Amino acid sequence: MTMAKIPVAILGATGAVGQRFVQLLAAHPWFEIAALAASPRSAGRRYGDACHWVLPGGPPDAARDRVVVPLEPGLDTPLVFSALPADAARDLEPLYAQQGCAVCSNASAFRQAPDVPLIIPEVNADHLSLIPAQRAGRGWKGLIVTSPNCTTTGIALAVKPLHDAFGLQRLFAVSMQAVSGGGYPGVASLDALDNVLPYIEGEEEKIERETRILLGRVQGQARSEAPIIVSAQANRVPVVDGHTICLSLHFARQPRMDEAIAALAGFRATGLASGLPSAPRQPVHVRPEPDRPQPRRDRDAENGTAVSVGRIRTCPLQHLRLVALVHNTLRGGAGGAVLNAELLVAAGLVKRA
Amino acid sequence: MTMAKIPVAILGATGAVGQRFVQLLAAHPWFEIAALAASPRSAGRRYGDACHWVLPGGPPDAARDRVVVPLEPGLDTPLVFSALPADAARDLEPLYAQQGCAVCSNASAFRQAPDVPLIIPEVNADHLSLIPAQRAGRGWKGLIVTSPNCTTTGIALAVKPLHDAFGLQRLFAVSMQAVSGGGYPGVASLDALDNVLPYIEGEEEKIERETRILLGRVQGQARSEAPIIVSAQANRVPVVDGHTICLSLHFARQPRMDEAIAALAGFRATGLASGLPSAPRQPVHVRPEPDRPQPRRDRDAENGTAVSVGRIRTCPLQHLRLVALVHNTLRGGAGGAVLNAELLVAAGLVKRA
Amino acid sequence: MTMAKIPVAILGATGAVGQRFVQLLAAHPWFEIAALAASPRSAGRRYGDACHWVLPGGPPDAARDRVVVPLEPGLDTPLVFSALPADAARDLEPLYAQQGCAVCSNASAFRQAPDVPLIIPEVNADHLSLIPAQRAGRGWKGLIVTSPNCTTTGIALAVKPLHDAFGLQRLFAVSMQAVSGGGYPGVASLDALDNVLPYIEGEEEKIERETRILLGRVQGQARSEAPIIVSAQANRVPVVDGHTICLSLHFARQPRMDEAIAALAGFRATGLASGLPSAPRQPVHVRPEPDRPQPRRDRDAENGTAVSVGRIRTCPLQHLRLVALVHNTLRGGAGGAVLNAELLVAAGLVKRA
Amino acid sequence: MTMAKIPVAILGATGAVGQRFVQLLAAHPWFEIAALAASPRSAGRRYGDACHWVLPGGPPDAARDRVVVPLEPGLDTPLVFSALPADAARDLEPLYAQQGCAVCSNASAFRQAPDVPLIIPEVNADHLSLIPAQRAGRGWKGLIVTSPNCTTTGIALAVKPLHDAFGLQRLFAVSMQAVSGGGYPGVASLDALDNVLPYIEGEEEKIERETRILLGRVQGQARSEAPIIVSAQANRVPVVDGHTICLSLHFARQPRMDEAIAALAGFRATGLASGLPSAPRQPVHVRPEPDRPQPRRDRDAENGTAVSVGRIRTCPLQHLRLVALVHNTLRGGAGGAVLNAELLVAAGLVKRA
Repeated sequence: MTMAKIPVAILGATGAVGQRFVQLLAAHPWFEIAALAASPRSAGRRYGDACHWVLPGGPPDAARDRVVVPLEPGLDTPLVFSALPADAARDLEPLYAQQGCAVCSNASAFRQAPDVPLIIPEVNADHLSLIPAQRAGRGWKGLIVTSPNCTTTGIALAVKPLHDAFGLQRLFAVSMQAVSGGGYPGVASLDALDNVLPYIEGEEEKIERETRILLGRVQGQARSEAPIIVSAQANRVPVVDGHTICLSLHFARQPRMDEAIAALAGFRATGLASGLPSAPRQPVHVRPEPDRPQPRRDRDAENGTAVSVGRIRTCPLQHLRLVALVHNTLRGGAGGAVLNAELLVAAGLVKRA
Repeated sequence: MTMAKIPVAILGATGAVGQRFVQLLAAHPWFEIAALAASPRSAGRRYGDACHWVLPGGPPDAARDRVVVPLEPGLDTPLVFSALPADAARDLEPLYAQQGCAVCSNASAFRQAPDVPLIIPEVNADHLSLIPAQRAGRGWKGLIVTSPNCTTTGIALAVKPLHDAFGLQRLFAVSMQAVSGGGYPGVASLDALDNVLPYIEGEEEKIERETRILLGRVQGQARSEAPIIVSAQANRVPVVDGHTICLSLHFARQPRMDEAIAALAGFRATGLASGLPSAPRQPVHVRPEPDRPQPRRDRDAENGTAVSVGRIRTCPLQHLRLVALVHNTLRGGAGGAVLNAELLVAAGLVKRA
Repeated sequence: MTMAKIPVAILGATGAVGQRFVQLLAAHPWFEIAALAASPRSAGRRYGDACHWVLPGGPPDAARDRVVVPLEPGLDTPLVFSALPADAARDLEPLYAQQGCAVCSNASAFRQAPDVPLIIPEVNADHLSLIPAQRAGRGWKGLIVTSPNCTTTGIALAVKPLHDAFGLQRLFAVSMQAVSGGGYPGVASLDALDNVLPYIEGEEEKIERETRILLGRVQGQARSEAPIIVSAQANRVPVVDGHTICLSLHFARQPRMDEAIAALAGFRATGLASGLPSAPRQPVHVRPEPDRPQPRRDRDAENGTAVSVGRIRTCPLQHLRLVALVHNTLRGGAGGAVLNAELLVAAGLVKRA
Repeated sequence: MTMAKIPVAILGATGAVGQRFVQLLAAHPWFEIAALAASPRSAGRRYGDACHWVLPGGPPDAARDRVVVPLEPGLDTPLVFSALPADAARDLEPLYAQQGCAVCSNASAFRQAPDVPLIIPEVNADHLSLIPAQRAGRGWKGLIVTSPNCTTTGIALAVKPLHDAFGLQRLFAVSMQAVSGGGYPGVASLDALDNVLPYIEGEEEKIERETRILLGRVQGQARSEAPIIVSAQANRVPVVDGHTICLSLHFARQPRMDEAIAALAGFRATGLASGLPSAPRQPVHVRPEPDRPQPRRDRDAENGTAVSVGRIRTCPLQHLRLVALVHNTLRGGAGGAVLNAELLVAAGLVKRA
């Protein structure tokens, strides 16, 4: 594509997720930042002053001197990325969608709304077919698509190839999640150091529900959840980035080990989802070493967009056990929403100037 | 008991587990350290010089100036604690047992031998009934009892009351284990910091097997494993002490939540196992908070000898989910072996001068 | 002392420092908690419900069910411990002092007021002689004494014996401070993990000033700072408890190494400060190992009340280098204020019923 | 340069430093790996099998299948990188130099030999003028150049511009060093977690001596150390990569703050050292924020080759205080040796085929 870049706005640009959006979009081949929007406390200030940058380095030069604008609609960009908290997202995202923006949201506000696609491009790009009904039903010129919870993103990518091949029926998941998933300031260091927090509010419910949605079907205008029983246990561990998830899986047909590995290693994006500029060449990396994946060593695979899977072995209770690792902010969080925006462009759902 | 203290020897006294033995026995009401034995590299040296103390503070004064003796049998103590590595344990522990010592071992060498009791006093003190056959079959005047793997210790204590009441049939366990479980120097800091290691060699097999042994029965002279299907996934996390374990359980009879909590909170040591000086008043602490147990905040419950259990809730796939926490060296490791020695004394199995 | 215990109130009882007060006072031989006071958000609630307990274990049983009272004066206790933030302390502590309470404050509000003693019992108990002027000048029936910043506490204890013997003139200090010094929630885990923060707001100024005050003199009613040049650099490191401080010292008279060690190891509390129930037997522990003190292994020396000093060696630029370690909440923070209260009792400055 | 790449050998290729060499050289514009040499335990094996890769990801594809060769000289490459331990370096590096190789060593073995240049290109490239005397004196066809200790590298780069402008006379340094500086397995996690180690064997002496060498002069064939008094205190903190150093500096002429900042920010490589492909555009980054530099957020500046400096302020005891941060393996360690090799090429000191 040699087209002009598409101007985009970032809502909630000064928070931790917003900063990731700024970082990922600073040199994006298709998009260019046209507006950084944030709450009244930040609006009107230079971005470099308004935000306490928590990622490595500092704000990209192009963003540093931009003046932060208010969150009120009126932003004249075809594409809007939302890093808003759930409450604000519930109020504001529909206003943008109504005025014609394609909103790619990382918030949980609309993830479970039946007419709002919850999408990972490699997993369920076909759920975009909900959009016409969304527009019709809500009277929107634009649209909202959401990206899943970061742990769910890792699980869905790791099990999708196995589900397609063998029919996933039951899934146990125990996560060991990085502190960056809690935002900034987020998890207190007194809770994190030399410790495990065996609880993340609302996380287990999200994992259980969103996994079924992502692996479910859209027929006509209706979305149905996959009939998979999911049991999730979520923990916070003293890791900066990268969620590690221990999985046990039961299928309609028990795979041989070589079949399972082949399905995972051979998994590729197809159709509209193939060739997106931020997408990994190989969405699932199979690690053969006995002690991988590890968050510090594997989270950055393909710029953090590939999920790493290892320790594939049988399970005394179900069919397979394995360990999956996902970068929670580069593949989950902001990264997932950027991929969805690329998918929207590929699908012709972003209106161009 | 106002009797004279029983002299004890510690084999492998200079290593990390040996140091815990020294610490726990320095002011023990029943035992007094009579010999610190270690490999030729240390034998003949002052303990304070021979060992690189890795626990807080320093060696107890009484131990500091004691001269380390060689590992060769001939130690004239009725009770011997073994912190030997598995290979050395396999060779040396039988020699001590043969000459009449009661050996309380923390090594894995004999844990699965059918005539060597693998014991947690509150869980299966009755397995001591294997001793006569052990002595007869091996021609020993003394005996060996072993304490389980530290993660298994936490699991067995947490599920024993539920197993007794409801009949455990299937158990899914994912552990997040502290680095002290790997000894010293053990886990490299480059592997531990900002990381999770999703693999601990041999650990999952030990958990699966030892759990069945501990919950199994001894009838006549024969030990049978409990018919429980166990699936374990073991991880190392950047925590100093305290193994956290996420469990999902399926029973012969599904417990109501209040029944499960009552069974756990009401669990007490009985018979010979009651009243041991190092044992917790209440072996299982039930934490009602949504985010407990946590290793840094709960590992020291009752001097580290009580297991903490929390987040008791239903499981979409089985009956119950819960999180258990065990101090891996104060209740597992050296602590478990000291408790077993106390049980041996209570059972009259340690020969007195 | 077989006297009845003195009833005490804790202001700001639900915060992190307040919790330490509750823990230290729950079984104190001289004091008993009579009131737990906190802001309107907590007042009227059960302490166990109002506070998110962040220390190991849980609130002491005696405190758990006590109803939190408001911060307004009227608390009828001769002794008041203040864990208030600086702003609230500035307003409220004088009100308590006015009505007759002896206020032991851990806040920085009055630390540098010339008529308010800033005290470490072993270092400058004689500064209590400022109290008459404080009362006269402010018209108080009670009084305020303050305990220093936690890092300063470690420095002052470590250098006091050397200052007495050799006349400290110049001090260079670089601290590596634990996250618990920042309170709760305090330091964000995203700032603490795999990181060093080379800045703690206001800390360096406090260290430089308070060190001179603590080592200064009170003559008549006037306090003069010691003429010591102090250069402090403060850092936050990923450690839970225990501040480590690298020091370089220059004296009026250069000590020989054996003299310096003898001065440190021989240091004892004297006069009123000797025999306080929470005080360490030996305020400064000299560690001979090449790699001590270390926070995790030395912070709990004498229940956290002793400072550990090691690596005593010459300095190419000044006379001596050494490393000091202080438990920042057990000797600094709440612990320091409890010691000061004990000193007040020994000095007859707490009015008894 | 469009020339053919220069074949290079890496000695000690399987260790932690060796792996960094492999990573840095895998896609180097001037060099290509021709031999990976290691001890007999590894020689003859596939590199991917012989080494336990500890860096993120895995070995570069080109290295993975290469067969490791023995360390004995006979390697036919004009350039040799040495990641050998000091003892092996002392024996082997001269053999390579003798046969004509230019040896770029990261070992400490020859760092203080008066005829072996200890070099940081931006700091003292002119010390290469020692080479003729080195060759003449030792009868070598090749040569050895060494790169300094990683902490010294950070200090020397941070103070060089100030030394040039104002004449450094006295330097206090307290380091907080990352665990990767200790190699693999290196620092035990039980020593690193929730802890500070206030001692690194030999480190302080290296910092004090090497700083004087790097800032010293070569006149004729003789090297003289700079007459700077250096006092160093070295600590290990729980950080993966990046050494943070608190400095206090005294100069012949006291700089104004703006002069100091200008000197640091304006510092550039000159002469032969300018334009090296792995060198940073700007060797010293001045951070204006109050709380930077921080290891996790600043260590990767310019691919880890730039030193970050912040908190520039006056010192009560000397003239200036500041905090410097260096990536210890990308700028120190292997990274420093690669830069030196580039300098040797620029200087015409590597013999080409």
